[in-house]
Amino acid sequence: MNDDETATTASVTRSRRRFFAGSATLAAASLLTTPARAAQSAPPSLVPPWMRVQGRPVVSPAYGQPSPHEAAVVRIPFPGTPTDTSAASLTPLQRLHGIVTPSGLVFERHHAGIPDIVPDQHRLLVHGMVKQPLAFSMDDLMRFPSVSRLHFLECSGNTVSEWKTPAATVQRTHGLLSCCEWTGVPLAAILDEAGIESGAAWILAEGADAAAMTRSVPIDKAMDDALVVYAQNGEMLRPEQGYPLRLLLPGFEGNMNVKWLRRLKVGARPFMTREETSKYTDLMPDGEARQFTFLMEAKSVIVRPSGGLRLEHPGGQEIFGFAWSGHGRIRRVEVSTDAGHTWQDARRQEPVLPKCLTAFRLPWRWDGSPAVLQSRATDQTGYIQPTREALIAVRGTNSYYHYNGIQGWKIAADGGVTNANA
Amino acid sequence: MNDDETATTASVTRSRRRFFAGSATLAAASLLTTPARAAQSAPPSLVPPWMRVQGRPVVSPAYGQPSPHEAAVVRIPFPGTPTDTSAASLTPLQRLHGIVTPSGLVFERHHAGIPDIVPDQHRLLVHGMVKQPLAFSMDDLMRFPSVSRLHFLECSGNTVSEWKTPAATVQRTHGLLSCCEWTGVPLAAILDEAGIESGAAWILAEGADAAAMTRSVPIDKAMDDALVVYAQNGEMLRPEQGYPLRLLLPGFEGNMNVKWLRRLKVGARPFMTREETSKYTDLMPDGEARQFTFLMEAKSVIVRPSGGLRLEHPGGQEIFGFAWSGHGRIRRVEVSTDAGHTWQDARRQEPVLPKCLTAFRLPWRWDGSPAVLQSRATDQTGYIQPTREALIAVRGTNSYYHYNGIQGWKIAADGGVTNANA
Repeated sequence: MNDDETATTASVTRSRRRFFAGSATLAAASLLTTPARAAQSAPPSLVPPWMRVQGRPVVSPAYGQPSPHEAAVVRIPFPGTPTDTSAASLTPLQRLHGIVTPSGLVFERHHAGIPDIVPDQHRLLVHGMVKQPLAFSMDDLMRFPSVSRLHFLECSGNTVSEWKTPAATVQRTHGLLSCCEWTGVPLAAILDEAGIESGAAWILAEGADAAAMTRSVPIDKAMDDALVVYAQNGEMLRPEQGYPLRLLLPGFEGNMNVKWLRRLKVGARPFMTREETSKYTDLMPDGEARQFTFLMEAKSVIVRPSGGLRLEHPGGQEIFGFAWSGHGRIRRVEVSTDAGHTWQDARRQEPVLPKCLTAFRLPWRWDGSPAVLQSRATDQTGYIQPTREALIAVRGTNSYYHYNGIQGWKIAADGGVTNANA
Repeated sequence: MNDDETATTASVTRSRRRFFAGSATLAAASLLTTPARAAQSAPPSLVPPWMRVQGRPVVSPAYGQPSPHEAAVVRIPFPGTPTDTSAASLTPLQRLHGIVTPSGLVFERHHAGIPDIVPDQHRLLVHGMVKQPLAFSMDDLMRFPSVSRLHFLECSGNTVSEWKTPAATVQRTHGLLSCCEWTGVPLAAILDEAGIESGAAWILAEGADAAAMTRSVPIDKAMDDALVVYAQNGEMLRPEQGYPLRLLLPGFEGNMNVKWLRRLKVGARPFMTREETSKYTDLMPDGEARQFTFLMEAKSVIVRPSGGLRLEHPGGQEIFGFAWSGHGRIRRVEVSTDAGHTWQDARRQEPVLPKCLTAFRLPWRWDGSPAVLQSRATDQTGYIQPTREALIAVRGTNSYYHYNGIQGWKIAADGGVTNANA
């Protein structure tokens, strides 16, 4: 310790002594806590135990991990899938704090588990109605001009619970939702390189998993804002997100964003794969099935407070949630604290980006009486997120996919929070 | 496997057969590779081994990790520090792909290692020239209205190597630089809660590590855009980034963004701590030391290609890098491929946010002859990043901190990339 440090430490100690001499006036922020809670706050120890010992060394580990005190912030399995390789996991939205979903918490949906792909051996084939079939190595692809964009990704099965059997927590109702900064090559550049033949209208995208997951993509989307993505939140894709290569179709249902992408076949018609015939269609009340409902409509959800959490005591706090739309930007988010009787505008947090989660925030003072909190999103097209009742009036309850009704959370007098649909 | 899947698989097999029948026409993208390389590309196997077996199960682990094939993408120790607790680690910029730095790769600089703080026991004290001293628990703080913003964080010692002893890689020259989405409470709201007394002009910020790291912060900055941060890239702070609480002073030198924040003392004058007297001052050629040089000036660096990488063969590729400024937005990034004789505008990638990394990209065709690549940033104030020579002409080479000269990378005829300052 040099002279400067000694002097500084002495001065700090003095200031602590003066501070604690006046500790009768210590109180937690009065706006935000009840007097009872302020009185309960024990004064902090002069020097906490972690200041008395040297800490853990630098770069240990060289790739960092969350605090052990946050071990409960994890993905959980989506209930009811028959195997653990054709299955899904859910993002802990109730513990997220910004529009970036940490890569380790991004939801999963797999049809034959997570393949271990050796990147040097991976190839992307482009064939079908093209002037020149092409095979790209990862090195070939990564030499192309790339772009990075923040986009949400939502399984069209997200919030399936709310059609009929409401779930207890926002992780279970809305956890098939995440948002990352994605980096990749515009699909248009790859198709231009191959040369699209006249009459081409659809592309088959195939994954290199054991399910050979396939979907048909309209060529207009492919030439618009689709990306062949190799990186996520600044680093190479995580294995469960398609390492080393995936398709990203901003605003389209998650299943079409084919992971472990190995093949693009250009054709004149949709390829009618399992994933767009028996699955990912919407059964209407009259027994007809809507097909090719690719776009995720405007939706929002309050994640704090939400089901399973508890308000410890009355007082001020912040309502926090996310809004998003496959059509572009979120123009407005309104919040109701009285079960939809009145609404007020929440603050949309910048940056408000197209086809990206928009965080919203609203200060709220809970007076200790029962309340129902709801949010409703309006996107740049003017579309307003419907109530659950309005949605079911049109769609019935035969549907599995594309539920985007307003979500309510009920606050009980004891502070417990439950699903208002239950 | 149901009927749909059988049909799909059959159709896929047929299309593969047609494709490989025409495989003589297969070639990697002609724009981007030499004919020699295209001929070397082995045709992909019909069904790679990872498509023949079920993959790893879902949510295993429940908090995901990078691919084992990316195990080399890690922080490395900053050389020459005497202990492993008063030490630093460097972000692998040459392997980053967007403006978000993955939390596991954010650079570190610690003075007494990483404390293990129990969040329920952590307190933030606010005292000194305030109307009411306050002690906040984490729960108190997290009830305040919060904001999330993307900001870079750069140690003012970043690029110290280039004053005198140029380093080999961009991780070693510029790796004390990262960028995250930070979430926290505006410091102004906390100070308003305590009530600042007239005459207050500076704040002492103290960390809860064993070094009790302290810095003086001008109150204008505190009331402007400073945040008391609890989350990073959507989740709670990593331990090495200050869990559970840190100061964030957007655009100010990294050291002032005090981690493990436990105390804010409001005063009339700077507190003259070790970190702003013996350290974090800039020794000028005449022997005078500049003090309180908080703002990080405009700077940029090409991260691909960069020192230690190799261009495998001539042809098209993309130059990729980052630009940033503590003064606000990056207005322009220019790139030279001929050692600064001519410059062309690089594409700034959206979103271009204030005091945040801005990614830039420029397609470039390497003709196989020696070249020197450089980038230069202009920020919203009109300030232009200086050459190394111009910087040294003013500052001399006594300085340790605040090096922001233009960085050059030399490409040899064999494709090897080295530091042009060496």
